[in-house]
Amino acid sequence: MVDSRFISALAAAALAIGAAAQSKTMAEVLAASKPSDWRPLDPANTLYLELDTGRVIMELAPQFAPQLVANLKTLVHEKYFDGLAIMRAQDNYVVQWGDADEKRPLGAAKVKVPAEFDRPAEGLAFTALPDADAYAPQTGFVDGFPAARDMKTDRAWLTHCYGMVGAGRDNSVDSGNGSQLYAIIGHAPRQLDRNITVIGRIVQGMELLAIMPRGTGNLGFYEKPEQRTPIRSVRLATDVPEAERSKLEVIRTDTQTFTDLIEARRNRQDDWYKVPAGHIEVCNVPITVRAAGK
Amino acid sequence: MVDSRFISALAAAALAIGAAAQSKTMAEVLAASKPSDWRPLDPANTLYLELDTGRVIMELAPQFAPQLVANLKTLVHEKYFDGLAIMRAQDNYVVQWGDADEKRPLGAAKVKVPAEFDRPAEGLAFTALPDADAYAPQTGFVDGFPAARDMKTDRAWLTHCYGMVGAGRDNSVDSGNGSQLYAIIGHAPRQLDRNITVIGRIVQGMELLAIMPRGTGNLGFYEKPEQRTPIRSVRLATDVPEAERSKLEVIRTDTQTFTDLIEARRNRQDDWYKVPAGHIEVCNVPITVRAAGK
Repeated sequence: MVDSRFISALAAAALAIGAAAQSKTMAEVLAASKPSDWRPLDPANTLYLELDTGRVIMELAPQFAPQLVANLKTLVHEKYFDGLAIMRAQDNYVVQWGDADEKRPLGAAKVKVPAEFDRPAEGLAFTALPDADAYAPQTGFVDGFPAARDMKTDRAWLTHCYGMVGAGRDNSVDSGNGSQLYAIIGHAPRQLDRNITVIGRIVQGMELLAIMPRGTGNLGFYEKPEQRTPIRSVRLATDVPEAERSKLEVIRTDTQTFTDLIEARRNRQDDWYKVPAGHIEVCNVPITVRAAGK
Repeated sequence: MVDSRFISALAAAALAIGAAAQSKTMAEVLAASKPSDWRPLDPANTLYLELDTGRVIMELAPQFAPQLVANLKTLVHEKYFDGLAIMRAQDNYVVQWGDADEKRPLGAAKVKVPAEFDRPAEGLAFTALPDADAYAPQTGFVDGFPAARDMKTDRAWLTHCYGMVGAGRDNSVDSGNGSQLYAIIGHAPRQLDRNITVIGRIVQGMELLAIMPRGTGNLGFYEKPEQRTPIRSVRLATDVPEAERSKLEVIRTDTQTFTDLIEARRNRQDDWYKVPAGHIEVCNVPITVRAAGK
C-alpha cells in the first residue's frame, strides 16, 4: 500500500516549489529584470514642466488622444505655458495649471478639439489584469499607461489613476484644448473616466505637484494670484538640448517581468505582510521608472 | 389604432419621472438633509493634532480597535506626542508621526498591543454598498467609517481609504502601540487592509497633512531632523476647554440621505458628466463633515 502521507508530502513539496517560483518581492523582480524589460521615454512624447522646485516629467499618450496631444504640442512650441501658473489644488483630487485669466492667445492651436474620451479597443496591445475592477469590465495596461476596455462595445480608455494628466474642459465635450491641464493627486477619481480627454501621465516629479498648498476657493482654486505656483516653462524633450534631457526608462507593461511585478504586489512576500490581498486594482500597480542605463 | 409614438412618449416620460426622483446632485441631497442625518463628533473619541499650520481632527474607531485606541488615549493623556514631529511623508502613500528616535518613554501605555486587524462582523451595523469591490467580498460603512466584511468568515475591517489613520508596526503583529501613527495621503493602499490596526480617520485637516514635503530617505523618511514638521500637541477633545473645541457634525452613514448621496456620486447628474460611472467604490464615497448647527 502506498503511504498516503508520503504522497501528501510530495504534493506539498511540489506546491511549495511552485509557489516559490512565483513568490518574489517587487525588489527581487526588479533586480532580476533584463534591459529588454525597459523602454526609454520617447523624447517626441515627453514634456518637461519646469518649476522653481524642479522638473516634472510627463509622458504623452497620442495613441489615446492624437488630436489633443497634437494641439498641446502646438501650444508648447509656442511657449504658451511659460510664465503661467498652477492655479488650483483641490485636496484628494487634482492640481491644475494653465492661464488662470484665460487671456493668453492660443496662437496656431485650436480652441476646440473633439472629445477623445475613449477609442476603439481593437488595434491596442492591451495587457489585461485578471482582477475584477469596480468601474470597468476589464482593466490593464497599454504602452505603460493604466487603461480599461469594454470588449462588448470595442472601446478602450485611460483610467484616472494617481499621476494621470488630462485636459480640463467646460461642459461642452470639445472645450478641452490642452491650455489647462490637471494631474490626479489623490484617490483615483474613476468617475472621470470616459468623461474627459486623458493625455498622459506624470512619470517623475509627482512629489513636486502633490504638495501644492490646497486652494481655499471653490474647487480648490487659489483666491489670490500670489498663491499660485509659477511655471518657468513647458518644453517637449526634443526641443531641449540633449545634455539637458532627463534620461529615463519605463518598465514595459507587456512583459513577463511586469506580470511578475504585479503578482509581487498582489500577494506580498515581504515579511511585514500577514494576509496577502490576493487581488490588485489597476491604480495600485506601480509603473516603475528609473534612470536610463541602470 | 393606438399611436405607438404616443405610448413611447408616455413611457419615456414615466422613465424620466422615475429618474428624476433619484436624480439629484450631491449638493441637492446635502441641501435637503435633515438634522437627524447628522451626528456630532463624540469628544471622547476625537483627537486634535495641533500643527503650526492648524488643527487636524481625527475620529477614533474603538469599535474596531478597542485596545489600540485605549493605549493611544493613555499616550495622549501623558502628552506623549507634544513636541514630537511628522517624520515621514511618502508620496502617494502615507505621512507618519511620532517619536523618530523611539526614545521617549511610553509611561503607562503598553509597548505591545494585540493585533486588531479585523473583528467579528456580527454585531456591527454595516451599511453595505451593492457595488463590487476589487479587494473584499463586500464593502460599506460602519458608524461613518469605510469598511469591508466577509460574511463567510464573519470578519469585518476598516479599509485603507484616503485619510484613514493606522498604528504603525514592525514585522511583529503586536508591535503597533499607537506611538507612531500614519495617515493615507494617496490612492487607497488596500493591500494594507487586515495587515495593520486601523484606528480612525482624519475628518478635518487632511489638506494640512497631505502637503508635507516628501521625505527623500528610504520610505519617505526625512533625512534631517530639521525637515520634520513639529507637533505642538495632541489632545483628546474632552481634555480641551469647551470653547476651544471644534464643533463638527458627520453625515450618518446608515440613512436614506447617505444612500442618496452615494447614488448622486455613482451616477452624476451634474451637467458636466456625460457618461455616469454606474458604479462606485468605497474609497470614492465622501463622508461629509460640516460645522455643527449649520
